[in-house]
Amino acid sequence: MSDKMDYASAGVDIDLEGSAVASLISSLGKSVRSTGTPGAPVDLPGGFGGLIEFGDHLLALATDGVGSKLQIASMLNQWAGVGIDCMAMNVNDLLCVGAEPIAFVDYVAVPKPDPEVHAALGASLAEACRLARVTLAGGETASLPGIVTELDLSGTALGYLKKGEAITGENLQAGDVLIGLPSSGIHSNGYSLVRKIMQHAGLQYTDNAPFDSSSSIREVMRFNDSNGEMTLGEIFLNPTRIYCDPVVDLIKSAQSGENGFSVKDIRGICHITGGGLSNLLRLHEQLGWEIDNPIAPHPEFLWLAEIGGVETWEMYRTFNMGCGMIIAVNSEHADKIHSWLSEKMAGIKIIGSVVDNGRKVVHSQLGIEYSHY
Amino acid sequence: MSDKMDYASAGVDIDLEGSAVASLISSLGKSVRSTGTPGAPVDLPGGFGGLIEFGDHLLALATDGVGSKLQIASMLNQWAGVGIDCMAMNVNDLLCVGAEPIAFVDYVAVPKPDPEVHAALGASLAEACRLARVTLAGGETASLPGIVTELDLSGTALGYLKKGEAITGENLQAGDVLIGLPSSGIHSNGYSLVRKIMQHAGLQYTDNAPFDSSSSIREVMRFNDSNGEMTLGEIFLNPTRIYCDPVVDLIKSAQSGENGFSVKDIRGICHITGGGLSNLLRLHEQLGWEIDNPIAPHPEFLWLAEIGGVETWEMYRTFNMGCGMIIAVNSEHADKIHSWLSEKMAGIKIIGSVVDNGRKVVHSQLGIEYSHY
Repeated sequence: MSDKMDYASAGVDIDLEGSAVASLISSLGKSVRSTGTPGAPVDLPGGFGGLIEFGDHLLALATDGVGSKLQIASMLNQWAGVGIDCMAMNVNDLLCVGAEPIAFVDYVAVPKPDPEVHAALGASLAEACRLARVTLAGGETASLPGIVTELDLSGTALGYLKKGEAITGENLQAGDVLIGLPSSGIHSNGYSLVRKIMQHAGLQYTDNAPFDSSSSIREVMRFNDSNGEMTLGEIFLNPTRIYCDPVVDLIKSAQSGENGFSVKDIRGICHITGGGLSNLLRLHEQLGWEIDNPIAPHPEFLWLAEIGGVETWEMYRTFNMGCGMIIAVNSEHADKIHSWLSEKMAGIKIIGSVVDNGRKVVHSQLGIEYSHY
Repeated sequence: MSDKMDYASAGVDIDLEGSAVASLISSLGKSVRSTGTPGAPVDLPGGFGGLIEFGDHLLALATDGVGSKLQIASMLNQWAGVGIDCMAMNVNDLLCVGAEPIAFVDYVAVPKPDPEVHAALGASLAEACRLARVTLAGGETASLPGIVTELDLSGTALGYLKKGEAITGENLQAGDVLIGLPSSGIHSNGYSLVRKIMQHAGLQYTDNAPFDSSSSIREVMRFNDSNGEMTLGEIFLNPTRIYCDPVVDLIKSAQSGENGFSVKDIRGICHITGGGLSNLLRLHEQLGWEIDNPIAPHPEFLWLAEIGGVETWEMYRTFNMGCGMIIAVNSEHADKIHSWLSEKMAGIKIIGSVVDNGRKVVHSQLGIEYSHY
């Protein structure tokens, strides 16, 4: 095994996944629901999907799972965070079009149901609903011993927005200011690589972290039974940040106009998931992005890069590297919006700007760039 | 192994599943969304969940998967029906509260993506969207080689209805007439038992059916590459009937009043899933149900009972036995509604009535009854 690791060598073939999804999509036809009726599909600029018409509103659906982070939760029998992860992956996607999440349903597949695990999942989902301010409107638990060998958890979130108030990136302009919202850790992407690095290093998730994990912009959720030093498992299972607070409130404040900025001043919102910084490319077909004042990566990212010999370029297109959401705003009101957000959440920073220099994301301090998602 | 088989011996512990789900639910608190705002939970009589407020409307979410029927699809590499199964399990649930399904999202978990399988799934979901008249508003494919050993497919459907027009069973009365809608076969419940019986009998899914599978009220979808006698695999993978057509149209006709009956005349709608006839008990706390003129079970049900030595009582609480949906209507308009439905779908029958003789379901011809769900 080479010392250099990347996402593909960790067993995730992004191209194959993309090709499978493309096959599925190409088999789909046009919706039978016609424009102007409830359920008619809405194609927004920027390629955002998942939106349908509903009277004066648009409804948005997002569906996603926790992925292989669950394997660490299973191994440690620690479930307090995964409901939050599942919620976050979905509601954070809804926020990107300016939708307010209102409801959620979960899907759990297990080889055999375990009431204790389900109680912990329920508590985690309850906390997730509180953080995302949504109603848990149902769920399904399937016993599938012939299909799953351990617990899988996914979910679907429903959100809404007023027609004409979608945030799509179409009004982005060179000079727009990028505001970065800190992540809480690795969130729910890149775990195949995390697990590969851990295996390569011969470390256990119950081992104490061989680095100082403290950070002024996030706290790590301790396991219930932990009484001592922070373990690698606790750091890696830290739940994904749910950004409904402050992003829903930011949008409402913009709608009201009471703080001197409007919805039109919020030009684009990007959830930094698998693909890392390259996610920004999805927001516009021509413009580029320059990050010149980044949020500092949490210690675990630096440690993973070092112990795994992962190149910086690969790290920033696999992980969020400390910044889980980026909001592009009109430069005229950037300071106001930044101040407003900073009162709600620690660690928010102006990290860069939109530039008209080709469709690419440049991290200027590190000299890395991405021109493909 | 005993000759007698039931659902529990097939490896599905319904009590354990119920206990796990109860654990999850008991961990959940009240929703943070308050009455009168979008997303506030709505508790309907009869315990229907999944409904939330949205202005003058209610929105409904349903989430469910295809379950172990997928294991037969995987074994045979036949995917044309499973997208329809996945859609059906969800939209048929929405119909039971009188909601019109409008959108759907799918979640696929695979050990490794296969573009050919995904193309077939896409075609199946496209057909399902056409049959259910919904927009496919998104989907997720997760590669989870450490969690799933073969493909898992689930989904979430979104529907809506006007406030005050929910169908809940609360207006049910003794004397109401039960209209049965034929199933297309086993649908998507009871497959652990089907697979157990097949294994016990030493038969292959590629074997020709050792019985005449023809039925005047359903057609079996042939595999693309099949050219000959009907196989057991084709019969067992026949996709679940999607009842949007005719049930959505029935509700619309009732809303318009143009055919002489109103929404209030549709007293209850029951999707016959796992639990078989006992599903009816969910509609009312006191009233009972008498089935005295049932739809004849499809040949495969009789064959499974015989070859597996499964008792009749067990069959009717595991499978739909030929009837996939039951609509309880005001007896005054039962003939009109029955005639209206019969023009849209073959095999629809008046199968029994609501009775005030204790909370139980009685199948009088067979002398079996159910008093617990």
